[in-house]
Amino acid sequence: MRAIVVDEGRATFRDDWPAPQPAADEVLVTVLRSGICETDLQLIQGYKGFRGVLGHEFVGVAQSGPLAGRRVVGEINCSCWRCDTCRAGRPGHCPNRRVIGILDHDGAFADYLAVPARNLHAVPDSIETDIAVFTEPVAAAFQITTQLTIGARDRIVILGDGRLGNLCAQVLADISDRVLVVGKHPRKLAILDSLGLATCLLAEFPDERTADIVVDCTGSPTGLPTASRIVRPRGTIVLKTTIAGAQTTEWASIVVDEVTIVGSRCGPFDTALAALAAGKVRVRPLISERFDLDNGVAALERAAAPSVLKVLLDVAL
Amino acid sequence: MRAIVVDEGRATFRDDWPAPQPAADEVLVTVLRSGICETDLQLIQGYKGFRGVLGHEFVGVAQSGPLAGRRVVGEINCSCWRCDTCRAGRPGHCPNRRVIGILDHDGAFADYLAVPARNLHAVPDSIETDIAVFTEPVAAAFQITTQLTIGARDRIVILGDGRLGNLCAQVLADISDRVLVVGKHPRKLAILDSLGLATCLLAEFPDERTADIVVDCTGSPTGLPTASRIVRPRGTIVLKTTIAGAQTTEWASIVVDEVTIVGSRCGPFDTALAALAAGKVRVRPLISERFDLDNGVAALERAAAPSVLKVLLDVAL
Repeated sequence: MRAIVVDEGRATFRDDWPAPQPAADEVLVTVLRSGICETDLQLIQGYKGFRGVLGHEFVGVAQSGPLAGRRVVGEINCSCWRCDTCRAGRPGHCPNRRVIGILDHDGAFADYLAVPARNLHAVPDSIETDIAVFTEPVAAAFQITTQLTIGARDRIVILGDGRLGNLCAQVLADISDRVLVVGKHPRKLAILDSLGLATCLLAEFPDERTADIVVDCTGSPTGLPTASRIVRPRGTIVLKTTIAGAQTTEWASIVVDEVTIVGSRCGPFDTALAALAAGKVRVRPLISERFDLDNGVAALERAAAPSVLKVLLDVAL
Repeated sequence: MRAIVVDEGRATFRDDWPAPQPAADEVLVTVLRSGICETDLQLIQGYKGFRGVLGHEFVGVAQSGPLAGRRVVGEINCSCWRCDTCRAGRPGHCPNRRVIGILDHDGAFADYLAVPARNLHAVPDSIETDIAVFTEPVAAAFQITTQLTIGARDRIVILGDGRLGNLCAQVLADISDRVLVVGKHPRKLAILDSLGLATCLLAEFPDERTADIVVDCTGSPTGLPTASRIVRPRGTIVLKTTIAGAQTTEWASIVVDEVTIVGSRCGPFDTALAALAAGKVRVRPLISERFDLDNGVAALERAAAPSVLKVLLDVAL
């Protein structure tokens, strides 16, 4: 089959990659559409030492099981369901887990992938494939709402005007009427403006510590230090982006100002699908470009450009 | 009056320091006893650029106001009570605050200090002065209980067997029966053992990520990286110690494992006084040595020794 494979710091197109052999608890999925995420770009640069087929945002058609023949999306953590962590209700953190397209499990930039049956969610007919492919990142944005109690008047600053920042802003703006996205890219900020969100250039952000909640979606080592400068005492910083390597920041202010920092990763697919179906999160303006799978390597290069939001791969029609 | 004064990275004894002139909302306090804290040692080394009389843990006698003639302890944050932060119920984080012995306000290693009247708490007669002088650090330990919901079966690891680690361990062991103190100093761990607390040498701590809550009381840049290695996914790290300068740690695991980090500083004096009165926190074993105020500089040097816990200053009888 065709696949975009990462190995030794390079992504390459292969047309001879062996199709996955689903395990007993897995379903073979024919991929329709995939989305490129910041994490894919990090993985190419060596994050987590991943080798294999990239891709963890996808819509496909299940080839077996109770959802056979239906369009599906899939949660990315393949957990053992037997260890203490799984039994404690935290399967997303299973120490034995594989992660689709990220850790020891081939991903969705390919004609087929294997997905644990219990990870699959049917896509309602009302959600187009181009929209449903955003389920995974929209779920990641909703994860914040499962971790924090957010008030309707909380001042929320989203740092970063990229893919994830945009989705987090849309999700949180449905709860609080004081969400501000701070970014560096006028074109991306203009898209947020068009969605009715308040925006500000980082260079013009006032030097004040008034944010109740700051969400770091910068994908940059500058994110946390910036967040520490603008969060109010006893405020909360949510870290959404994973960055390879060690980061350096001033710690004393975190203690003295009693700031809370919350790491935040994967979120609830059912909530994301419901929000996409209801049009509460609008993702179509985020689609910058689309490529077919054969041109997946060019698509990855394009996704790294500062002006680009979401790049989709048309794997099958 | 006599005072231990810090300036340009040095602490010196002075017998000609002017006595404080209390402002309208302040009370003059005759100091009886003071305690030396890790923060005092950091301040001498330049933390926050403080100049003036050191000392923020004290018991004294109020010279005026409703508590005149009574033994008192005092909260350290001198807030403006007018700004948005104060009116939002966070006076401890007032941006205009002075902090006794730490920021723009002379402290308690002296014959007298001035304290805002509303910061004072009467010491019940049942609490000896040597015990009451621990109110401020015991309150800081109790602050953790105001920030987190702690379960009776939560696995709690205290990193650091020093003054603050000891007090945090005692406070948290009253809530959970699974508190473990991890330290480097056999003598300090032995004191914790004698108080009935479970202890472990850092070198012998198993390489496993099972702690629900890790409290960093190390006072060292190694504290956070160590805490990150032993906290379980979705667990909580409490940062109690302030360290000058930038710290470096791996951030990706905080995000991927969805760890929460909580900065924690000053706590409730009323709770601390009640716990000391009830004997729930036992502080006498922590008193390593005592000096009179004239020998305060030697006392500060002694407090920096690895084997020493609390050093007290006998200012008056």
